[in-house]
Amino acid sequence: MFADCTPGPTPIRIGDKWTARIIACLHEGPRRFSELQVPLHMVSPKVLTESLRAMARDGLLTRTAYPEIPPRVEYELTVLGRSLLEPMAAACAWSREHLGEVLGARAAHESRTSA
Amino acid sequence: MFADCTPGPTPIRIGDKWTARIIACLHEGPRRFSELQVPLHMVSPKVLTESLRAMARDGLLTRTAYPEIPPRVEYELTVLGRSLLEPMAAACAWSREHLGEVLGARAAHESRTSA
Repeated sequence: MFADCTPGPTPIRIGDKWTARIIACLHEGPRRFSELQVPLHMVSPKVLTESLRAMARDGLLTRTAYPEIPPRVEYELTVLGRSLLEPMAAACAWSREHLGEVLGARAAHESRTSA
Repeated sequence: MFADCTPGPTPIRIGDKWTARIIACLHEGPRRFSELQVPLHMVSPKVLTESLRAMARDGLLTRTAYPEIPPRVEYELTVLGRSLLEPMAAACAWSREHLGEVLGARAAHESRTSA
């Protein structure tokens, strides 16, 4: 759903730098911390922990610790978190269709001002 | 269209702090600098100038100076700028419907952690 929506200088942003990417990673179901680190390979464990904590605080996802050995912790979108998928899809569709135009306008502006 | 979409701690953001508000102000037609200052009454002339310049650079609006006395300058959304109205409306609808839940989740978290 969001695979071809690469992050970039899009004017539409969902949450902080990682929020939308975490939501995209969780939209098919619960994931463990290590399962989020793989697709989000640029994120440090510290930043991922902070992002997940902020999203849990805002009611966008839940953190469930299962009393197993070794312990298992899963993150899952709440109904509220899932409700962001729709505006995210709209933002993603916009970027797919128009981001090239923004970058083109910027490049044209650069070449005008540096000439 | 966006009158009841007050800015706030929404997870969805369009551009920098003022971009979405400027687009909302321009969606009915071209406006002069002074006509933008009125609805955006918290913005300083310096910041408004910078925001308008960045948006022109990105191809979202045009700046037209009419050779009149006194000089008249108008800002108008481009087709690209207008294309942001749709994802903005989706973001706005989300905030209207769900922002209270985010704030409620935050408040509940606050009271749990401060107890």
